[in-house]
Amino acid sequence: MIPMNFAADKTADYLLTGSWSKKAIAEASKITTVNTVASSETSNFQNVPDAAEWNHTNDAAYFHYVANETIQGNALHQPPEIKSPLIADMSSVILSEPIDVSKFSMIYAGAQKNIGPAGLTICIIKDEFLATASNELPGMLQYSKHAESDSMFNTPPTFAWYLAGKVFSWLKTNGGLEAIAKINHTKAKTLYQFIDTSDFYSNPVAIANRSIMNVPFILKDSNLDAQFLHDSKNAGLLNLKGHRSIGGMRASIYNATPQDAIDALIEFMREFEKKHG
Amino acid sequence: MIPMNFAADKTADYLLTGSWSKKAIAEASKITTVNTVASSETSNFQNVPDAAEWNHTNDAAYFHYVANETIQGNALHQPPEIKSPLIADMSSVILSEPIDVSKFSMIYAGAQKNIGPAGLTICIIKDEFLATASNELPGMLQYSKHAESDSMFNTPPTFAWYLAGKVFSWLKTNGGLEAIAKINHTKAKTLYQFIDTSDFYSNPVAIANRSIMNVPFILKDSNLDAQFLHDSKNAGLLNLKGHRSIGGMRASIYNATPQDAIDALIEFMREFEKKHG
Repeated sequence: MIPMNFAADKTADYLLTGSWSKKAIAEASKITTVNTVASSETSNFQNVPDAAEWNHTNDAAYFHYVANETIQGNALHQPPEIKSPLIADMSSVILSEPIDVSKFSMIYAGAQKNIGPAGLTICIIKDEFLATASNELPGMLQYSKHAESDSMFNTPPTFAWYLAGKVFSWLKTNGGLEAIAKINHTKAKTLYQFIDTSDFYSNPVAIANRSIMNVPFILKDSNLDAQFLHDSKNAGLLNLKGHRSIGGMRASIYNATPQDAIDALIEFMREFEKKHG
Repeated sequence: MIPMNFAADKTADYLLTGSWSKKAIAEASKITTVNTVASSETSNFQNVPDAAEWNHTNDAAYFHYVANETIQGNALHQPPEIKSPLIADMSSVILSEPIDVSKFSMIYAGAQKNIGPAGLTICIIKDEFLATASNELPGMLQYSKHAESDSMFNTPPTFAWYLAGKVFSWLKTNGGLEAIAKINHTKAKTLYQFIDTSDFYSNPVAIANRSIMNVPFILKDSNLDAQFLHDSKNAGLLNLKGHRSIGGMRASIYNATPQDAIDALIEFMREFEKKHG
């Protein structure tokens, strides 16, 4: 919907940092001319390309990036300074820490990570940017129609709204985004530190670009992967298998994951290493 | 999505029977040439135009109709015999009675009436018709992508799926669509009979086209509307106000409404008539 609404006949700039930005580029290319400003694909998306090397279009329709790549476990932690309207896919990182919304023309995020049940997407769009959107598309595809109708252009997913409201209240009651950020950073730090001090496990992502939500790690001997998954499942640690495009393991540690779960994972990993290392 | 997927450069035939088919035509007209085969708009959609008078396009991309118009309370109870691929919006009537799915190239229905919570739409598409769909659209807009991915092209609304499954089980346990049809037809018949025998209330829809899900009715004296709504609300009978485009009252009696509720409504209407008639 973003290129349909906002690209018109202009080139859209995209930063390629992982599987989700790659999909966004493929879809946008059906609608408009896409300029990939930079890519870390040749290094398996183990980092976010340095901003100094980004090759911007003059007068681009917008600049799009994925703030957190779930599969590769990398992130751009601060919004980049961009001349054209800045758009971020924050699906897997929204509500994990405070963000400066004023820097963005648009932020969008699927609900299923930190907001509520799947089946809801939140869009935050600056009024002046929304005013530039196409009004010739089918109604359901026009962001402005949804905004005019207070998100009730169609019958909205009421129960998902209700649960999202409950999650927002829960976050506020527990100290808001500052408090959850502190918890999330501690969770991630604990896990990365353990991985980095081990010779048995490793995380390939550049330290500055490590995600605080998704922590991929590989075992020194990938022949042990099946055993690791089997034993961890028996220990009540589920869904640790990395995405098939990457292999290895991945711990997704969204807001709902407590520090205790991280500690239990580390304890399990330590024991597994003792047995098989 | 239907005209984007299936109209290509062909004309699409639409039957205009109420507010929802009017919206469908307005949206389709943005994408392709629309031929309105017949309309009952001049008679305020109080009937479905007779099939003998429909003005079909030769080799139309498809024929689209709305099986049940919620606002006007009319319905086409049997699928029409059409040469071009037959498509029906069954949002407000699906699961209310058995339908012969084999007659249709496509049936679609929002979940929020008889299926489950809002935020889910079911599409039933014949394989051979699906094969004619565009494969140049953005992935999210291609029916074939959703079909290939078992409806998991994007993260699906899992909780809505789960609840819909519960509703399907409930229907099966209670005798399936034959049983619920019997209940629904009795509910509607009871209410229409009461309205028709009253001089105080009336329903304007042609008898052959009366909806079994939405029963609009008007009071002889519209000055009593506010009083009726006030008193009915106090009696625990909610949401009886007709759509603002029609006025009067409307009883929506979907699968979840039991016969008891119909009986209570009739009893209230009888008392109200006694007091004000």
